[in-house]
Amino acid sequence: MADQPQEFDVLVLGGGSAGYAAALRSVQHGLTVGLIEKSKLGGTCLHTGCIPTKAYLHAAELADEAKESEKYGVKMTFEGIDMAKVKEYKDGIVAGKHKGLSGLLKMRKVQVIEGEGKLVSQDEIEVGGTRYKAENIVLATGSTSKTMGLPLSEKIITSTEALELEHTPKSAIVLGGGVIGCEFASAWTSYGTEVTIIEGLPTLVPNEDPSIIKQLERTFKKRGIRSNLGTFFKSVEETSDGVKVTLEDGKTFEAEICLIAVGRGPVTEGLGFEEQGITLDRGFVITDERLHTGVGSIYAVGDIVPGLQLAHRGYQQGLFVAEEIVGNNPVIVEDINIPKVTFCEPEIMSVGYTQPKAEEQFGKDQIELTEYNLAGNGKSSILGTGGIIKMVSVKGGPIVGVHGIGTRIGEQIGEAQLIVNWEAYPEDVATLVHAHPTQNEALGEAAMALFGHPLHG
Amino acid sequence: MADQPQEFDVLVLGGGSAGYAAALRSVQHGLTVGLIEKSKLGGTCLHTGCIPTKAYLHAAELADEAKESEKYGVKMTFEGIDMAKVKEYKDGIVAGKHKGLSGLLKMRKVQVIEGEGKLVSQDEIEVGGTRYKAENIVLATGSTSKTMGLPLSEKIITSTEALELEHTPKSAIVLGGGVIGCEFASAWTSYGTEVTIIEGLPTLVPNEDPSIIKQLERTFKKRGIRSNLGTFFKSVEETSDGVKVTLEDGKTFEAEICLIAVGRGPVTEGLGFEEQGITLDRGFVITDERLHTGVGSIYAVGDIVPGLQLAHRGYQQGLFVAEEIVGNNPVIVEDINIPKVTFCEPEIMSVGYTQPKAEEQFGKDQIELTEYNLAGNGKSSILGTGGIIKMVSVKGGPIVGVHGIGTRIGEQIGEAQLIVNWEAYPEDVATLVHAHPTQNEALGEAAMALFGHPLHG
Repeated sequence: MADQPQEFDVLVLGGGSAGYAAALRSVQHGLTVGLIEKSKLGGTCLHTGCIPTKAYLHAAELADEAKESEKYGVKMTFEGIDMAKVKEYKDGIVAGKHKGLSGLLKMRKVQVIEGEGKLVSQDEIEVGGTRYKAENIVLATGSTSKTMGLPLSEKIITSTEALELEHTPKSAIVLGGGVIGCEFASAWTSYGTEVTIIEGLPTLVPNEDPSIIKQLERTFKKRGIRSNLGTFFKSVEETSDGVKVTLEDGKTFEAEICLIAVGRGPVTEGLGFEEQGITLDRGFVITDERLHTGVGSIYAVGDIVPGLQLAHRGYQQGLFVAEEIVGNNPVIVEDINIPKVTFCEPEIMSVGYTQPKAEEQFGKDQIELTEYNLAGNGKSSILGTGGIIKMVSVKGGPIVGVHGIGTRIGEQIGEAQLIVNWEAYPEDVATLVHAHPTQNEALGEAAMALFGHPLHG
Repeated sequence: MADQPQEFDVLVLGGGSAGYAAALRSVQHGLTVGLIEKSKLGGTCLHTGCIPTKAYLHAAELADEAKESEKYGVKMTFEGIDMAKVKEYKDGIVAGKHKGLSGLLKMRKVQVIEGEGKLVSQDEIEVGGTRYKAENIVLATGSTSKTMGLPLSEKIITSTEALELEHTPKSAIVLGGGVIGCEFASAWTSYGTEVTIIEGLPTLVPNEDPSIIKQLERTFKKRGIRSNLGTFFKSVEETSDGVKVTLEDGKTFEAEICLIAVGRGPVTEGLGFEEQGITLDRGFVITDERLHTGVGSIYAVGDIVPGLQLAHRGYQQGLFVAEEIVGNNPVIVEDINIPKVTFCEPEIMSVGYTQPKAEEQFGKDQIELTEYNLAGNGKSSILGTGGIIKMVSVKGGPIVGVHGIGTRIGEQIGEAQLIVNWEAYPEDVATLVHAHPTQNEALGEAAMALFGHPLHG
């Protein structure tokens, strides 16, 4: 370690999506970079978030398809899920990506510093007794599952532990009907678990457009996923053979395990941030709109910055700060224009304003809406999925929101986010040709309807 | 029939994709429309083309997944394909869409005229002895499988007959390695058929970018699909238990059946077109760039117009002519900017210039290329697919071509076609956020690489 440099142009605290993106882009601009990571490079996304959950959801998709295959003429017998094998598959994907990322950082000459770092001055971070100094510091310490004070156990777990289960629970209560809760509820249901979602707010995925929510709730119900909405839980306790959740209205639910999926909180405690004058709000780091903390040349990126907690927002913020440091004056991407995908079955994708948010922003009579039903989309019928594409536009103006729900609909986010970010008018999309027969055609149909002339409608 | 109107603003000959799109858009503009169809509304695409083949390919996908499911931890036994059931599923999809289309045309008050129409003057078409008159005539008579003079039989078939098979052939020779040939070769291989493709040109899918072709040929080989490229066939004959194909170099191939997939020819013979002064070239209707035949107010749309034979090009041309008729001066969409998807496994998507075409158009040293390997894309690893995204841009200018290959990559055509049609610069795409973990991210990575700063590279 003696010959490792201890001074850098940029020092990044945290090797998750946001941190490593900042590091990689900084070296691309010729800066020297140190990247401090206490656990594993790749962070939540790679090890306990996006990647492993999507592997689980793919196994779930295969299980669903197996159960339905007869009607497609494919003869097979579904015999169940081998969780140890699913875990092995998931671990293989994660290990491969981890190796790739580590190799990439090494090849790009990012100096990886292993250990827990603490901010000790406005330009220094201490790791294991050694002080590292930098012109610029990027805080990227990420997030962790909130537990709301509930003691974790073998039966009361968060998503991190859920991904390590070697068996399929017979029944599960999922506390929280947001993205993480719905993804696990979906996967487990496909695996054969009886799932009940407890959500204190009146709906599942409350940040989505109401039409999408309605469709999700209806489909989840059809899939046999039970939900209790609108009442918060009061307590979670272990019983002799499982868990019991009591709601504020006294209602109780029992199951083999309970997944706490009530959101993720920032990891910022005890890291010296406040001591150096950085403002924290309920643990989140407060920055200006250019992600500067207001202290020295210290920036914050990723899940510790209030807003959407998404890996790709982290990447974007990491890249943004690297560009900012070299004076490239990067464009701010507003959270509203960041694409979102929920990978449950059916999948949800959304970017831009929901109907209520657009009504609030532009006025109720200043917006236009269209809902295209996937029943009219050939490829969706072939896949056996229902669903909708919903577009929100400003009257005589651009499309400001695109939302969708349906099997495999997540990949439509690509065109959706270009439409919203480029402020396309309905006619800019409607006059172009969408390939047949794809699910993507549904976006063309929605834009045509918004432009006043649906093709198949 | 006596009370049916016999005069229209627009008379469309042919109720396939191009014809019915022209009809529907015309009534949206307040015109009266007659739509003549001798067989089934929906044409090739709905009954013997896009829709049924994609249903077959979805069954094929399920079969592939079943065979591979063990490594994902999903325990199932694959027992084979029940072709009668696959056909039933396919027929169900087609019947549903057919009913929907018929209902839509009726609701929109398009007058459907059943029978074979013949152009008998510059503004009249005769159907079953009755003359129908119109201000504008749109020819949309479509295409049919070419047979190159080979007599069809139970063992020598085209795609139309292939879709009606009630069994899975043990072995098949596919004459032609274009889109249709590759799709059938792919589906049959998934069903368990031993497939050999015979293609006279030196490659499969010869219109695609060379990088895509290379990847397809490699993957097909891995899948056990045999190909004989670069030599044309000389004869196809039936044997006692199958077919024998002899190539020009004397080599022979035997199999249970032979699929002729050498392209589709226009249906224009004996329909009175030439008699009215319309120019035909090898059966295709020659028009100006605004699809006018140069005779009266007669337009031609869809597969009878030289160029890409795709349903969505047909839609687009149908809509174009309807807009043209009402004087809306629609924008011409060049064939090069029409998105294309081949639904074999792996899927192919492409829009805009391939590398060789771009080199020819812009000069070899005036273009930039990037190939992003899907091995770096998380979602693709989860799906277990390799592949690439290739982008072609003009130096210092817009992205003029986007090409991709990989499992499920077809749906990326949405963002790809917006990029090319909106003439986006690499930085217009690179600075935006692509949702993680999707296959769509690969487009963002490719654009970032083209812009000089790959995220994960």
